[in-house]
Amino acid sequence: MAREPLRPVLYDAARDLVRLLDQRRLPAEEVWLELDGPDAVAQAIRDLAVRGAPAIGVAAAYGLAVAARRGAGPAELRRAADRLGRARPTAVNLAWAVRRMSRRIEAAADADALLAEAHAIRDEDEASCRRIGALGAPLLPPQARVLTHCNAGALATAGYGTALGIVRAAVESGNALSVFADETRPFLQGARLTAWELQRDGIPVTLLTDGMAGWLMARGEIGCVVVGADRIAANGDVANKIGTYALAVLAAHHHLPFYVAAPWSTVDLETPTGADIPIEERVGDEVLLVAGQRIAPAGVPARYPAFDVTPEALVTAVVTERGVVRRPYAEGLRALAGGA
Amino acid sequence: MAREPLRPVLYDAARDLVRLLDQRRLPAEEVWLELDGPDAVAQAIRDLAVRGAPAIGVAAAYGLAVAARRGAGPAELRRAADRLGRARPTAVNLAWAVRRMSRRIEAAADADALLAEAHAIRDEDEASCRRIGALGAPLLPPQARVLTHCNAGALATAGYGTALGIVRAAVESGNALSVFADETRPFLQGARLTAWELQRDGIPVTLLTDGMAGWLMARGEIGCVVVGADRIAANGDVANKIGTYALAVLAAHHHLPFYVAAPWSTVDLETPTGADIPIEERVGDEVLLVAGQRIAPAGVPARYPAFDVTPEALVTAVVTERGVVRRPYAEGLRALAGGA
Repeated sequence: MAREPLRPVLYDAARDLVRLLDQRRLPAEEVWLELDGPDAVAQAIRDLAVRGAPAIGVAAAYGLAVAARRGAGPAELRRAADRLGRARPTAVNLAWAVRRMSRRIEAAADADALLAEAHAIRDEDEASCRRIGALGAPLLPPQARVLTHCNAGALATAGYGTALGIVRAAVESGNALSVFADETRPFLQGARLTAWELQRDGIPVTLLTDGMAGWLMARGEIGCVVVGADRIAANGDVANKIGTYALAVLAAHHHLPFYVAAPWSTVDLETPTGADIPIEERVGDEVLLVAGQRIAPAGVPARYPAFDVTPEALVTAVVTERGVVRRPYAEGLRALAGGA
Repeated sequence: MAREPLRPVLYDAARDLVRLLDQRRLPAEEVWLELDGPDAVAQAIRDLAVRGAPAIGVAAAYGLAVAARRGAGPAELRRAADRLGRARPTAVNLAWAVRRMSRRIEAAADADALLAEAHAIRDEDEASCRRIGALGAPLLPPQARVLTHCNAGALATAGYGTALGIVRAAVESGNALSVFADETRPFLQGARLTAWELQRDGIPVTLLTDGMAGWLMARGEIGCVVVGADRIAANGDVANKIGTYALAVLAAHHHLPFYVAAPWSTVDLETPTGADIPIEERVGDEVLLVAGQRIAPAGVPARYPAFDVTPEALVTAVVTERGVVRRPYAEGLRALAGGA
């Protein structure tokens, strides 16, 4: 905990730029991209230079603020917002952040007000993560052996993280836990990002391939699963990184708790169930190439659904900054919505 | 089916060498190693130049035959057999093949007789695979969508394959099936070997990362699972490549059949249950490096149990050349043992 908190999306006030820690190049290199507007941000979102549902929302908000600061008028901002909102389909936080900025654009807010709104989105997200951590940490037993998938950490948010926010808060409260990180093929967020940010904070982490978790559960080496989310439907179904669903089935089979951590901006009460969540299918080449090298013979196709949907019945609890929700989720989420 | 049958372990009579298709370099290159004795074979087994339970048994048998042909006496052959038998612990076929050769050594067989025994082990294995194919093919529905894990193909055997033997036999009988191949991290046997050998035979194959299968099952895109085995205990528990157990849990959750294909030499009636099977734990570096590049930060450890154990309750049927066995496996396997 000695180092500066990790914040992957920054605003450069002197030069009116969005600065993004390029997550494609971690852990080998810490390279910051400097983006001068919403289309560059949309490209960075599509290319996974920034990923993680809350983080891409924050990046999009700053992209619009930068455009306004550089003189874009309402019509241009509206078009940019539309393009940004369609950069990736599954994470609802992106649409949510763009909608929030768009309301300010429609209210004829000036560039400073748009920047203030983007700052607010960022600050609220980090505050939400810290609250999620505080609410979730007591769910973990002492010396917890936590499995996580993909990266729902500081790198996926404005800072601190959702699933890893719970891990961080538990460690800060004295829990001598350890983390198993699924490497999370194809993009290797677990190996590259989760391992990196936990090591940076001195939290014990061991890497697994994605096929190992079930066996370690059977052997009693994993005590619980904590993951993030890209969208939570009104009934509690959870879209998250491909592979999450399999872990939820495996956790249920082994009677292990399966926790989902996400800011309220990930909850989409307009989407009734997981069946209504659009699942992004990316190009198979992202599976076929590892570290720039082709792993399969030329001509063999690959599938790449980027997300899957975990039915609410397999989710032990959803931790948001508004509270911890358990089944039945439809009522629990509605109650938190009303209580906002 | 136009090409020569694939046989990954050959004996070079002119030069008294074991020739192995180096499976570490597929699919990029087809390189044949030429090994002049049992220690070189043992090293190739440890280094995964040859892998697959039946194939390493065949390679070990040829290693001993070559030693005898090159003049090794009984004492030297005994020591070599002992070293070969300990090259990898989980696959019982290795110990089985070495024991079979050792019986000939103890019977004072000459070099030609040892070579004949090695040829017999190889020929019987390929014949077993073809019989497994014939017995297993009718288990697959028309236009089957078959998920397989790792490589239980021609490359893992003397030829034709076990799980992929069933696939090949079904295709030969007119089943317009298609295969989903798990890439099978860390060694990528699915991406590198299964995809290669199926493409070579013109059988449709689509690559998946190891986290995808559960979601495709939930979507109804996978109809059954067919895998090989490294050891089958007397009660029907199955040791196979890490990740197999998770697939078995997922298949059961989705009410999909889960078939295990293996020659009788994989059945180990001396081992009562899966808990008694030694599981090889390999060095974590094999997880941390992909295509020679480090995927996680230096200092982060990784686990690498090379195999897992699937309890017999999750196995729909075991297909051996002696017959198709279903629960209760203890009786079914005992009956086949007696009927040999």
